[in-house]
Amino acid sequence: MNAPQDSAQLLPQIAPRPVPQPLIDALSARFGAQCSTALAVREQHGRDESPFTTVPPPAAVVFAESTRDVADAVRLASEHAVPVIPWGVGSSLEGHVLAVQGGISIDVGRMDRVLSVNADDLTVTVQPGITRKALNDAVKDTGLFFPIDPGADASIGGMTATRASGTNAVRYGTMRENVLALEVVTASGEVIRTGTHARKSSAGYDLTRLMVGSEGTLGIFTEITVRLYPLPEAVSAAICSFPSVEAAVRTVIQTIQLGVPIARVELIDANSVRGVNRHSKLNLREAPLLLMEFHGSPAGVKEQAETVQEIASEHGGADFEWADTPEERTRLWTARHNAYFAAVQSRPGCRCITTDTCVPISRLADALLDSVAEADASGISYFLVGHVGDGNFHMGYLIDPDDPQERALAEQLNHQLVRRALRLGGTCTGEHGVGVHKMDFLAEEAGAGAIEMMRAIKRALDPKNILNPGKIFLL
Amino acid sequence: MNAPQDSAQLLPQIAPRPVPQPLIDALSARFGAQCSTALAVREQHGRDESPFTTVPPPAAVVFAESTRDVADAVRLASEHAVPVIPWGVGSSLEGHVLAVQGGISIDVGRMDRVLSVNADDLTVTVQPGITRKALNDAVKDTGLFFPIDPGADASIGGMTATRASGTNAVRYGTMRENVLALEVVTASGEVIRTGTHARKSSAGYDLTRLMVGSEGTLGIFTEITVRLYPLPEAVSAAICSFPSVEAAVRTVIQTIQLGVPIARVELIDANSVRGVNRHSKLNLREAPLLLMEFHGSPAGVKEQAETVQEIASEHGGADFEWADTPEERTRLWTARHNAYFAAVQSRPGCRCITTDTCVPISRLADALLDSVAEADASGISYFLVGHVGDGNFHMGYLIDPDDPQERALAEQLNHQLVRRALRLGGTCTGEHGVGVHKMDFLAEEAGAGAIEMMRAIKRALDPKNILNPGKIFLL
Repeated sequence: MNAPQDSAQLLPQIAPRPVPQPLIDALSARFGAQCSTALAVREQHGRDESPFTTVPPPAAVVFAESTRDVADAVRLASEHAVPVIPWGVGSSLEGHVLAVQGGISIDVGRMDRVLSVNADDLTVTVQPGITRKALNDAVKDTGLFFPIDPGADASIGGMTATRASGTNAVRYGTMRENVLALEVVTASGEVIRTGTHARKSSAGYDLTRLMVGSEGTLGIFTEITVRLYPLPEAVSAAICSFPSVEAAVRTVIQTIQLGVPIARVELIDANSVRGVNRHSKLNLREAPLLLMEFHGSPAGVKEQAETVQEIASEHGGADFEWADTPEERTRLWTARHNAYFAAVQSRPGCRCITTDTCVPISRLADALLDSVAEADASGISYFLVGHVGDGNFHMGYLIDPDDPQERALAEQLNHQLVRRALRLGGTCTGEHGVGVHKMDFLAEEAGAGAIEMMRAIKRALDPKNILNPGKIFLL
Repeated sequence: MNAPQDSAQLLPQIAPRPVPQPLIDALSARFGAQCSTALAVREQHGRDESPFTTVPPPAAVVFAESTRDVADAVRLASEHAVPVIPWGVGSSLEGHVLAVQGGISIDVGRMDRVLSVNADDLTVTVQPGITRKALNDAVKDTGLFFPIDPGADASIGGMTATRASGTNAVRYGTMRENVLALEVVTASGEVIRTGTHARKSSAGYDLTRLMVGSEGTLGIFTEITVRLYPLPEAVSAAICSFPSVEAAVRTVIQTIQLGVPIARVELIDANSVRGVNRHSKLNLREAPLLLMEFHGSPAGVKEQAETVQEIASEHGGADFEWADTPEERTRLWTARHNAYFAAVQSRPGCRCITTDTCVPISRLADALLDSVAEADASGISYFLVGHVGDGNFHMGYLIDPDDPQERALAEQLNHQLVRRALRLGGTCTGEHGVGVHKMDFLAEEAGAGAIEMMRAIKRALDPKNILNPGKIFLL
């Protein structure tokens, strides 16, 4: 981890709280070998996929193996008013797991079991440490699948905490729509349950939805019940290349406005295609591409594809290239999921500052094209990928972390892009979360009154401010 | 309004807070003719469609015409620590608008404008007083529609406050999934905004979802942005009769488990059919019926209908009777929406105690059939309707409000039904809300820890407990 000298400047400046030795002793006594203070372990839990680093890493790491373990760790930390930071697999792009105010890390990675598959109800209850791929492996014999797929093989706990989505959200929704119920350890170490296994409910405050996207600041998830979906009878995937990003985007806007129930529609620009081709040994045309997938009955899939093909051709799209076998489709979507890593690897030693705005679909062209033009004009290295059916896209600015000018340029472009999205009625983050770096954007987006309401909720549920402090907003 | 002597016993026993004359004077000075203390007006705002009544009605009614009006009324009430109760059209079935702890009513019925139709984004922003039918009338030239349809022509504000749904929820979701953004007057009379017009967001706590279903206890909505959907290219509705409720329910369970994207699938029992036939001058077969609707392309609709027809015939369902023209469909669904009123009118002078449990789809037969058997065995007058695709059904017990034994019997059946639903992993209320009468059920369902979390949020956002107190839980 070669942290650039100035990375700390990107983080809110609040001194870490001390972690007293009696807490470490108590954790060691309670957890034995499940508690580590080894520097390598701490450092591993002190960083994620974000370009932000922090000094110091957490003072200790507890490897929880049960709800009881999590509750006990939180209770001990609460007694000493010491921050606790939940850890899944560390794939956050926004610094969610960094110990910016000190504290201990609670690693739930060993809590990775499927607790019950309720195939008849199209739900599954899991522990938070299971990853999305492991979850899908576990249910693959049921004829059902879990559609939410951020780029990384993230943990379900982390995905719940960041209200994650991915390529299937245009049809299946995000974690907001797909988490039904939770078991949560609160700031005092109490264990509560939110929601039920019913599909809908009007029973009191929607604590489940309040917890989803709370980034570890309101509770630590120990059980998560999510919806599953029948594997579609027919699946067709296709690639279509376009003469410009604009042509691709206009195709998507029209598809969504017509209500075509497309399952996936992803934009990748020529820069991303180059990275993906190199990384995944593909031969995709180096042009703006839409990667699409259609789910349904054989006839329904055919109908959808014909409609979109017609729209695409109006915008100069080339013929669809079909990925017909499961193997071809897996190859295609794996390549898409690797776009981020492919791009980052295209410039050795670089770090990536990733934008995540999401705008109403009618404003997508405005939001995206101006941002591309600004990036082109600036000369920065970048790539563009997007869950464009949702109005969500990511510019990845590839910077030399040791070059303050590059970093400043990326930040400036990012600011312009976010401001534009907010002007267009959008949000600063569609799926990555606020973390440590988007607090100012959130304040601008939500307004003082809404932020104060969030703070009031946080103070009420976590009076000692020990649950992942320094994320989303400062108290 | 002939309140039964014992109706107050159903309500939590907290003495109404006094409404001081200086507040009435201040409201009159600020609002002039928009503020009424006439008994008839107050009484009208002191009851709803629930079997509960309260003495006294609110001390005054403010007819708000703008966000500013709502904010000013709340601010004045806050100065005197007096409860404020938002009012839409009074169609609540759970006593939401009753002044159980005294206070003033804020009627937002005059705030019924469509503020902006964003057809290209499939959203519309409205004031809270507009009803669901008026909203659909307002957007009908756009080729879009708003699908959420509780039985009554409720206000969008009330539907947001109760997390309402209806017959289309099985395909289009509930208010939880369909409210994108809100303008809210807080307990201090401040105006905040939650959410954006983007389809998804990970920007901080999900205040929108916290407000949806909060039953007026966390804020008063003054603007609501909801999703719209393209009118389906093809629509087909059908009725199918079954030899038993069980056969109908098993057809539904299999349909949902297969992932058929059915738009509506409603169960009405023979009792309901009789009421509906009489009320709506129809000649439906007096047997358990499923009323269904399919949305999609012509080919898609045909496919769905064939699949369901096959499942139905396996369970002894009769041939589908099709409602092919828009007029026939409207007649059918109007009859369904009137089932509640038709049943209530079938026994002059009766009141209806309506259950609202929702269970995981695989447990629907268990939940529903045992409840029907208990009602049959008890000899009570009842009817059964259900949004069965969601696992949600309503038993309506028709009681003589002046007969304590009938009331006690209905309450006993209701308790057994709810307990059963909770045992089966369900919820005590799928769409009506908790209001004044389901607090004990909610406490049982959510558990002490979750209720305490709800209370903590309420205390944090409404420290004087003036926003619709005495609903959901007692502080």
